[in-house]
Parts: sequence; C-alpha cells; structure tokens
Amino acid sequence: MKEEQLKLSEDYQGNNSTLSGEKKSGETTCIFCRIVRQEAPSNIVFRDKTSVAFLDRRPLFPGHCLVVPVEHYETLLELPMKLIEPLFSTVKLLAEAVQIGMKSDGSFVAANNIVSQSVPHLHVHVIPRRFHDGLKGFFWPRQSYSNERSAMEIQETLRKTISDLQLKTRL
Amino acid sequence: MKEEQLKLSEDYQGNNSTLSGEKKSGETTCIFCRIVRQEAPSNIVFRDKTSVAFLDRRPLFPGHCLVVPVEHYETLLELPMKLIEPLFSTVKLLAEAVQIGMKSDGSFVAANNIVSQSVPHLHVHVIPRRFHDGLKGFFWPRQSYSNERSAMEIQETLRKTISDLQLKTRL
Repeated sequence: MKEEQLKLSEDYQGNNSTLSGEKKSGETTCIFCRIVRQEAPSNIVFRDKTSVAFLDRRPLFPGHCLVVPVEHYETLLELPMKLIEPLFSTVKLLAEAVQIGMKSDGSFVAANNIVSQSVPHLHVHVIPRRFHDGLKGFFWPRQSYSNERSAMEIQETLRKTISDLQLKTRL
Repeated sequence: MKEEQLKLSEDYQGNNSTLSGEKKSGETTCIFCRIVRQEAPSNIVFRDKTSVAFLDRRPLFPGHCLVVPVEHYETLLELPMKLIEPLFSTVKLLAEAVQIGMKSDGSFVAANNIVSQSVPHLHVHVIPRRFHDGLKGFFWPRQSYSNERSAMEIQETLRKTISDLQLKTRL
C-alpha cells in the first residue's frame, strides 16, 4: 500500500497532466481522497471537519505539508465559497506550525491549478523556509513588461474578465 | 514616481530581507500601502473593501498579479481570521480571471512569508501557467524522508505544535 502510494506520487511528479473532469471517478481513485478516508497511509498532522493536513512524502524541505479539503475539488476554481475560510484558516494554522515546529525563518504557501498539479485534488503546499536555503526557482526568470502599453493592455483584459466573472456570479 | 516604484521593487527582488516589526512605520513607507492608497502608480485590476489586485511589474509571465489586503499585515500569520475569506475569495477570482483573460491552461497561487518576501505587506501571487512553460523551480529539488521514523518524528512535532497553537487561541 505504502509503495503504491509513493509510486503514484512519483508518477505524477512534475508531470503536466490534464485532469479528469469526472468528479465521481476522481473520488474513488484519488490518492488524496484515500488519505482523507484513511484508506491510504500518510502522516496526518491536522484534521477538522473540512480539511486535512499531512506530510508531503517528497518534501522540498522536511515538514513540507499539504492541506486539502475533505471533499474532492480539483482546483481552487472549483472550491465553493463556503469552504474558502475553513481551508485557508487551516493553511494559516499550518504556516505558523511549520515555522514554530521546524524552527524555520518563514514559510511558503502555494497551490498549482492544473499545470504542475501533481494530484487533481486541490492541495495547498505549506513549506518551512530558511534564509539562504537555496530555493529560488519560483522567482526566476522574471522580466518587466516591455512598455507601459503592454502592461495596460493586460490590465484592461483582466479588468474586463473580472467584471464578466462577477456579472456571471450575480446572474 | 514610476521609476521609484520599479526601483524599490527591484531592490527587494529575491532578497531575503528581514521584515520591520513596526506596523505603523510600515504603513507609511510600504509600497503596497501606497499602491492601495493610489499614491504610487500601479496597474490595478480589482479592488473591493478589503483587497486590491494589481499587476506585478516584473511578472513571471504576463498577467502575473498580486493580491493584497487593504490593511497592512506583514504575512499570512498576522492576517486576522475575519479577513481570510475576503482575501482568498479575491485570490480565487483572480486565479479564474488570469486563466480566462490570459487564455492559460492553469494558474499558480503562492505567498512567501518572510523568506523571499519582496515587500513586507502580505501579497498572494496569482500567475497564469501554460503546459511546458518552463517553470519548474518550485518542484526542485525534492527528496523523500530517509526513513519512516524521520517522517513520524516530524509528524509528531507538527501535531504537538498545532495542538499548542490551538490551545493558545482558545485561552
């Protein structure tokens, strides 16, 4: 069972897999649903009614945890509004816990939606960070917009998209 | 003014700066507080009572946004519980918006607490992602726990820390 879990995790690792659209089949085979139901082994560090936190088996640094909703939602985009506060209050709790428990200087909180998402069940990484720990990948490579106009065009696109999304939600 | 903003952002870029402990002085000089108050130029894409989202001027990919609370809190750990739902519902909205608006395959949502935190005002990065876009830093390097015992020791440390934290909150 444990080997199977690790293998699954490694198979997914770093793959840009597309996600299954079918929620029901996801719940049956999803490794994180199995961890939530305690059908698969894991090192759970916290559990409440709506969220579970456990050690990532291939940590960036020891103490690296994953926080998942108990219910199966593929990405943050599918998470119902009523679960945002419960999930992210657990994320906040875990960020404090890894900083204190692992005696780290800070923490990194991150979620991949679809691209680089190893398992298609929303999971928020909470990772202890130390000064000069060598992790710099996230901030590389970055470059400025070539000119003010290109930034403004993107600003307008996003403003319009957000306004459309809000309208859709209200309908 | 614009150049000053860019310079500030670049100075902080990638530095593992320690954070000022003094909230009041932070609010006066903080570049994100100045953006919120519209005293500094920025490309704002969304604003409501509690949060503001604007383009990162040195994006990982075009459309890379930062979501900040209107009030000055240094990290997620200081964010009051009542602001979790408002802030992360904006993050969710922005994740959907960058995926639709930038026609991307997915998105990346991340926050640095203290280490690698460029500006000491909590900010959540929301970044459009495409398959094979070359971003892989976050998942490297990772390695498994050397044995089950070392994983269990860390699990116990975090469980105990979380239980202490919850006790403290209740007192």
